[in-house]
Amino acid sequence: MTGSHLDTQPTGGRFDGAYGVMAGLEIVRTLNDLGYETEAPVEIVAWTNEEGSRFSPAMVGSGAFTGVFTLDAALTTRDNNAPALTLGAELERIGFAGPMPVGGRPVRAYFEAHIEQGPILEAARKPIGVVTGAQGQRWYEITVTGQEAHAGPTPMPRRKDALVGAARMIDAVNRIGHQHAPFACATVGFVQVSPNSRNTIPGRVFFTVDFRHPEDAMLSVMDRELRQACDDAATASGGLDVEVKEFWYFPPTPFDPALVAAVRDAAAALGQPHQDIISGAGHDAVYMARVAPTAMVFVPCVGGISHNEIEDATPDDLTAGCAVLLNALLESADAP
Amino acid sequence: MTGSHLDTQPTGGRFDGAYGVMAGLEIVRTLNDLGYETEAPVEIVAWTNEEGSRFSPAMVGSGAFTGVFTLDAALTTRDNNAPALTLGAELERIGFAGPMPVGGRPVRAYFEAHIEQGPILEAARKPIGVVTGAQGQRWYEITVTGQEAHAGPTPMPRRKDALVGAARMIDAVNRIGHQHAPFACATVGFVQVSPNSRNTIPGRVFFTVDFRHPEDAMLSVMDRELRQACDDAATASGGLDVEVKEFWYFPPTPFDPALVAAVRDAAAALGQPHQDIISGAGHDAVYMARVAPTAMVFVPCVGGISHNEIEDATPDDLTAGCAVLLNALLESADAP
Repeated sequence: MTGSHLDTQPTGGRFDGAYGVMAGLEIVRTLNDLGYETEAPVEIVAWTNEEGSRFSPAMVGSGAFTGVFTLDAALTTRDNNAPALTLGAELERIGFAGPMPVGGRPVRAYFEAHIEQGPILEAARKPIGVVTGAQGQRWYEITVTGQEAHAGPTPMPRRKDALVGAARMIDAVNRIGHQHAPFACATVGFVQVSPNSRNTIPGRVFFTVDFRHPEDAMLSVMDRELRQACDDAATASGGLDVEVKEFWYFPPTPFDPALVAAVRDAAAALGQPHQDIISGAGHDAVYMARVAPTAMVFVPCVGGISHNEIEDATPDDLTAGCAVLLNALLESADAP
Repeated sequence: MTGSHLDTQPTGGRFDGAYGVMAGLEIVRTLNDLGYETEAPVEIVAWTNEEGSRFSPAMVGSGAFTGVFTLDAALTTRDNNAPALTLGAELERIGFAGPMPVGGRPVRAYFEAHIEQGPILEAARKPIGVVTGAQGQRWYEITVTGQEAHAGPTPMPRRKDALVGAARMIDAVNRIGHQHAPFACATVGFVQVSPNSRNTIPGRVFFTVDFRHPEDAMLSVMDRELRQACDDAATASGGLDVEVKEFWYFPPTPFDPALVAAVRDAAAALGQPHQDIISGAGHDAVYMARVAPTAMVFVPCVGGISHNEIEDATPDDLTAGCAVLLNALLESADAP
């Protein structure tokens, strides 16, 4: 049986993945320096395409490993901006398409270290977040269709302006997020307007919605509110058509209680201030939790900012996270 | 002195310009067939880039002819989607860059025939619109800046979502248009979201505003309302920055009373139902009105739709417009 599995996940702006990888390497190097042999082998994994910004959806590497996606589906994922390029062909091109089979290996325990990507630990001045699980997510693609027309001679009451309807829906998405404080998140991140010309009333708007909440029942409430708000805005904006399509869903994922306790105990033993936290972002750990006991360690990041060039975390916090990860890992790797 | 100047402006979907050109050719052909000689010469003009959808702003051809833009400014206008391409180089490439000097020729009268691009004549079942002038226009470029952040772990109250602010501004633009019924038009046609990624809170949104009204004083009121609404939405959306930049302006343009009367008289003489109308769209005639007496003839178009592949007008209405144009033109070209 293979033993503990150390993640490789991420900090470092555009190269999402740096913190997890560095922490994993540092731990294995430390064990080697000390001549320390664990009962079970320790492996480091660097997942492909966790962020999903070039190839959607996110986390296709761990998704393929855990059977969420078939290998073929993962490799034929297309570049968002250059649909002629597939993930598989690009991995070949950069020499990252290895010969080993994907998935099918038993894992006793999976740990992942990550920056929080949110402002909670920084505000609480705690270097360690003990991640008890991940929020559920529902992603939507919404298409609003009106009537393209010239911006000058088309009187206001006769317009079917798809963008006016979409703007009201975007405002409603934000309102739904605020209504279900403090845990709900609701975001429109992507918008495409057609024909996108200064003096043409937009005939069509496509946009995405990202809903997150730790409780599945609340995600269902938000789903109903979204559909109602879109219908209302479409009617109130000159009689538009609106199509609300659920694009991606995963339910809230609790992590393994024993491994979560190991992280908490390690923080306490090291004297590191810590608190339980729910992951708002998706992580490879969320997919790994389907096939193996899983836990995560969060460290604060400056301003809660991530997926951005100015993403930052302090050396002290990164070091603390790495030490907690090492101790929690040894609990598991040295278990009989 | 050169005499009457016949336009070439537009119908026909993507080839904006077809109706005016065809009407002009038909009139000159008719005069030639009848061996009819006018006192003053009749010229047909096909203006470059009236619509402005590829090269902004619109109407740079007539703008250069009338001195609104320098020739150099017109020729160095850049392709909206491929900024490496200039209008001048593209005209060279397709063989449309002729050797004649631009502008500086006296014009006694300028007529332009056009589809209405709005629903008024169709609803009134009148084939002829006697255009008394053009609405004023104010175009804006608005940039909203917030803070890019991960859509998952950033709690709603801590967000500075540029798109939520922009959505409220877009809704406000529409409200300003409705508030000043029946003549005001207010449109957001172009939106660019950054970074435009499904799971990232937008840090920056750029959009355009197109305001039109036949009275300059009302455009000033709308300008103040826009700036106030943008400030309010920026404040209410987590403290965003907003920059409102006026990008283009031209004041309401009344056409020449004698030429307008000639159009009205021609419609009456031909027994064509007609009504006075104000042009909501910009036209080359609006620039020509700065250097020469100008008038326009409108004909209805189906559903008020233009700048669109399904743009359409009936042969009967197009014929009526052409006949009115011929008669109005002769009034002027045969004047001593």
